[in-house]
Amino acid sequence: MTSTTDPARPAAAATIAGGPVAPSTSVLRPLPLDQVRIRGGFWGERQELNARTTIAHCQTWMERIGWIANFDAAAAGTVAQRHHGIEFVDSEVYKLLEAMAWELGREHSDDLAARYDALAERVAAAQEPDGYLHTSFGRPGQRPRYSDLEWGHELYSFGHLLQAATARLRTGHDDRLVEVARALADHVWSEFGPAGRDAVCGHPEIEVALAEFSRATGEPRYLELARIFVERRGRRQLATTLFQGSEYFLDDVPVRDAEVLRGHAVRALYLAAGAADVAVETGDDELLEAVKTQWANTVARRTYITGGMGSHHQNEEFGSDFELPPDRAYSETCASIASVMLGWRLLLQTGEARYADLIERTLFNAFAVSPREDGRAFYYANTLHQREHGSEPSDDELSERAEASLRAPWFEVSCCPTNVARTLASLAGYFVTVGDASVQVHQYADLDVDTRTADGTPVAFSLRTGYPFEGGAELTVREAGRFRLQLRIPEWARGSATASVNGEEVPVDGAYLTVDREFAAGDVVALTLDLRPRLVLPSPRIDAVRGTVAIERGPFVLCLESVDLPPEAVFEELRIDPAARLRSTADGAIATMVTGGAPDDAGTQWPYAAAEPGHADQPGHASTTRFEAELHPYFAWANRGPSLMRVWLPRA
Amino acid sequence: MTSTTDPARPAAAATIAGGPVAPSTSVLRPLPLDQVRIRGGFWGERQELNARTTIAHCQTWMERIGWIANFDAAAAGTVAQRHHGIEFVDSEVYKLLEAMAWELGREHSDDLAARYDALAERVAAAQEPDGYLHTSFGRPGQRPRYSDLEWGHELYSFGHLLQAATARLRTGHDDRLVEVARALADHVWSEFGPAGRDAVCGHPEIEVALAEFSRATGEPRYLELARIFVERRGRRQLATTLFQGSEYFLDDVPVRDAEVLRGHAVRALYLAAGAADVAVETGDDELLEAVKTQWANTVARRTYITGGMGSHHQNEEFGSDFELPPDRAYSETCASIASVMLGWRLLLQTGEARYADLIERTLFNAFAVSPREDGRAFYYANTLHQREHGSEPSDDELSERAEASLRAPWFEVSCCPTNVARTLASLAGYFVTVGDASVQVHQYADLDVDTRTADGTPVAFSLRTGYPFEGGAELTVREAGRFRLQLRIPEWARGSATASVNGEEVPVDGAYLTVDREFAAGDVVALTLDLRPRLVLPSPRIDAVRGTVAIERGPFVLCLESVDLPPEAVFEELRIDPAARLRSTADGAIATMVTGGAPDDAGTQWPYAAAEPGHADQPGHASTTRFEAELHPYFAWANRGPSLMRVWLPRA
Repeated sequence: MTSTTDPARPAAAATIAGGPVAPSTSVLRPLPLDQVRIRGGFWGERQELNARTTIAHCQTWMERIGWIANFDAAAAGTVAQRHHGIEFVDSEVYKLLEAMAWELGREHSDDLAARYDALAERVAAAQEPDGYLHTSFGRPGQRPRYSDLEWGHELYSFGHLLQAATARLRTGHDDRLVEVARALADHVWSEFGPAGRDAVCGHPEIEVALAEFSRATGEPRYLELARIFVERRGRRQLATTLFQGSEYFLDDVPVRDAEVLRGHAVRALYLAAGAADVAVETGDDELLEAVKTQWANTVARRTYITGGMGSHHQNEEFGSDFELPPDRAYSETCASIASVMLGWRLLLQTGEARYADLIERTLFNAFAVSPREDGRAFYYANTLHQREHGSEPSDDELSERAEASLRAPWFEVSCCPTNVARTLASLAGYFVTVGDASVQVHQYADLDVDTRTADGTPVAFSLRTGYPFEGGAELTVREAGRFRLQLRIPEWARGSATASVNGEEVPVDGAYLTVDREFAAGDVVALTLDLRPRLVLPSPRIDAVRGTVAIERGPFVLCLESVDLPPEAVFEELRIDPAARLRSTADGAIATMVTGGAPDDAGTQWPYAAAEPGHADQPGHASTTRFEAELHPYFAWANRGPSLMRVWLPRA
Repeated sequence: MTSTTDPARPAAAATIAGGPVAPSTSVLRPLPLDQVRIRGGFWGERQELNARTTIAHCQTWMERIGWIANFDAAAAGTVAQRHHGIEFVDSEVYKLLEAMAWELGREHSDDLAARYDALAERVAAAQEPDGYLHTSFGRPGQRPRYSDLEWGHELYSFGHLLQAATARLRTGHDDRLVEVARALADHVWSEFGPAGRDAVCGHPEIEVALAEFSRATGEPRYLELARIFVERRGRRQLATTLFQGSEYFLDDVPVRDAEVLRGHAVRALYLAAGAADVAVETGDDELLEAVKTQWANTVARRTYITGGMGSHHQNEEFGSDFELPPDRAYSETCASIASVMLGWRLLLQTGEARYADLIERTLFNAFAVSPREDGRAFYYANTLHQREHGSEPSDDELSERAEASLRAPWFEVSCCPTNVARTLASLAGYFVTVGDASVQVHQYADLDVDTRTADGTPVAFSLRTGYPFEGGAELTVREAGRFRLQLRIPEWARGSATASVNGEEVPVDGAYLTVDREFAAGDVVALTLDLRPRLVLPSPRIDAVRGTVAIERGPFVLCLESVDLPPEAVFEELRIDPAARLRSTADGAIATMVTGGAPDDAGTQWPYAAAEPGHADQPGHASTTRFEAELHPYFAWANRGPSLMRVWLPRA
């Protein structure tokens, strides 16, 4: 393989430019990243932080601990002697490349472009003549290629390279990395295609990556390969272990026969996203319906109030229906991203607001909670109840992946930071769609949109809002034309939202405010969402939060942190008075809490006591104190140091 | 090493005969197994089943899957080519030998004695000339000895061999296995003693085993080695992994500095038991106090209502304080056994009833739940809430260790079945003690006791009872003499128990009924414990069971099983009316349950809903039905096939 850099060529056709997903057919059409831009505000600030800090943070860490140098060593033939990190660290470099690619599409930077090129070149140099590219397998002194499909993560890593190449194509560059990806995908076709071995990878990812790479390149074999991988799943081919059964690998039931997501959450969601892509591109309605059913059952029974998915630390798995403990909620950051990937695909295919509702909930609560406010540390798992201050990871040390009580700079298994980076860089792609003579705003932010409806009407508008902290949003049309403007009314605001067009009130019904008219430039559509805090009750089937309530404000799930409490409050003894009125604050709510001094014997006696006959209530506290406590959005918790924290508040 | 069988010699001195623990000094003295015998009833039937079925079941399985043959292969020099099972399967063979040893002490059987001798001989044949004995390490083609102290379980396995040898000595046989154990312990002294390497084993066990083997043999070096191993712990010497930190190994804090048990539950409890033995034998009061504090804090904050310990599947670890989820409670069977081992040691040293209370609770609820009623299948983990029928393990297949919904015949990691067998065979040893001029009955069963008080007064009595199903117990003195007879009043019966001596009522105060008199042969002490079912409330700090109650009857924790419900009852929707009177049944209780038909949208909609303003209550059910449901003891659950099950019942 030559190591000469192939200068980036512009993408062959405008039709392959786009955002994170570009189905060939859909009810709603996504926009390329140059047609929808986030300008400041909650997400804009996070995109800037990602561009300025997080992407470089990821690169610095992977240089420091040798994960990038693995490629150099592979090219030099020395990697067997000094490979750094576990088998799938290649994939982190690829997700970083993907983040860089989307970020360059969002806003060009010469410095970043140079860093991208250099990094892509180091990756390219490690590709073998037949297209294979992995730093952990196949060279002398290493295990043979494909000798450990269950755990080797070869195809998983390849998938992330294909996604990086897809990002590159979608942002207008048919470059060296794309060339590498084509050669790699061709290699996988030979090895695992119709004439190759009948096998799948332990960790799904290649499916969604191949489908998208097929869309981006127009190469039908890649789609066929994605289809084959999806269809091969569920035949119990992967060897199980003492702890990981076929369900863990999603190899227990064929995708089209499953009724709910299960097993390892990230694997399940990546696979479902890939299956949705395959279903759409092959016209396999049965498969698409199966994925929609799995999504619906998972959301109704196996999803945290934050949108987070996966409740077990053990195996990073989904739990049973309604098994959603807030303490030690696993709710992996990557699962939240994968859920957004899946929900977006289903939104495009159906136009149903419920998918956009969950995307919003997930982004603000299960995703935004991961990065620290300085963009240099991350949660891998996202508990909803912190019982102990726990250990504080050092900013200089590699962390275990999921146990620390504060965000950590990097992990031994570090899938989340690069996943956050690529998602933030491409985030605008999940906000707006077009249909025939229509445009839909699914998520609120300061947005500039300049696009065409699916049937060609130019649409340009600016949206300005204080959302998610304020409920008003004002959309100013910049180009005259007749189209149907649709603004999603979040599920919690339906019935209370109000709207006006050029100052004149209009009715708000259903899941989307629809304004269908001949727009003039300068027309203003104003929307007001009621952000007053809401008391939220869990289904009685969720045993782990029985007798508690949560508080939401706008799209935010709030939490109570010990750092916000007076020193005399015993965190374990706090209860909320659910009858007392909640008051709104700038970002959260003030609730009335009740605390009793802890009983003298709390934590020293057998903690189960027979009820007095005829008195089946728990013993009350002799004296109770009422005070007001301020709750803040969950996503920001522990940004002020170690804290005890609860999302679900016991009721007084 | 010669393979000639050394015929069993009688133990050197009566003083070394005894039960499972024989401290050189204690407030209460344990009895040798020939001085306290269980005759029928709940535990007697289980001992018979163990003798008839379970011990043979364990041996058959380990023959079938090659774990015993590992020793033959080791002796033949071929084990490197064909070792069966993981690194610590030797220990299962040793626990089987221990079970056989105790069982032969309990009731001699020529057949069992022959099987024991033959098995011990096969083990002995594998011992190397320097005393080392492990089938996974050290021979050509195997990993070097002590090359993996974290995970190799060499010293752990040795410990179980020493415990088997101790059982042999305590039941009057100084035999070939004891000789093997002495040579092995001497080898460990050379390798890890004062002149050896400064290291500990990843899995504590050698500590308690060496201390007891020292007591049984009188060899002080073994005690010193136990002391050294206890003191070396907590210095973070063991290499940690991505998932297992120093806490997992109990290597985070020196034993004498820890305030609560933590990390891997079985490791923690074995270590604490060993530390208690070392503290007693070396007069280290500070260390004994530390262990007592750890026990007290663990029982107050980290113990299930069943007495079960260890709430995480991940790492089989204790959770944080009050983190005790009933669904997926891990509550490993071996942890319940280890808890009994620890509690018994502390009871002997203190004479405090709280230790006997927890032993009883644990035996009836966390231990007795493991074996199936036919003695041929076992729970490894013991959940308190079964949400799904799950998979049914086959009686012919090796199971994963902890995930099945029914008891399994054998496991890939199969520590629990042999642990159950050795505990049942030696169980009588945990029931009765003597002190100066006194005898204490801590656990109720049909017992025949024939012993002497610590200062030499002969004591003989028979206890007959329908306990735990009936509350009456009658103790008939068989030998005249002056002594203080003490009968434990279980914590839940204090205040309601009544007693008489020769038909004349006597007061019952405190934790032990004490009858101090000159007994005549034929004197009868009768005790009545009130077994009426009790509603039990959890501490409000145990978040996972907020808003629920449990029901206990006598020593039993009860549970509700779906197999006992009418077909129209929706298990997930059942609640108990805590105001309705409980009625007693032969083994459980009848409670009044309320069920609403499941809401039409249960399980299909987002399961969190904003409360209507001013109405913070969960939505009620349109129609509710009341019915009576019978609850049975938790230990017996799933003996009638797959069932959904709850210990903690949501309150209506």
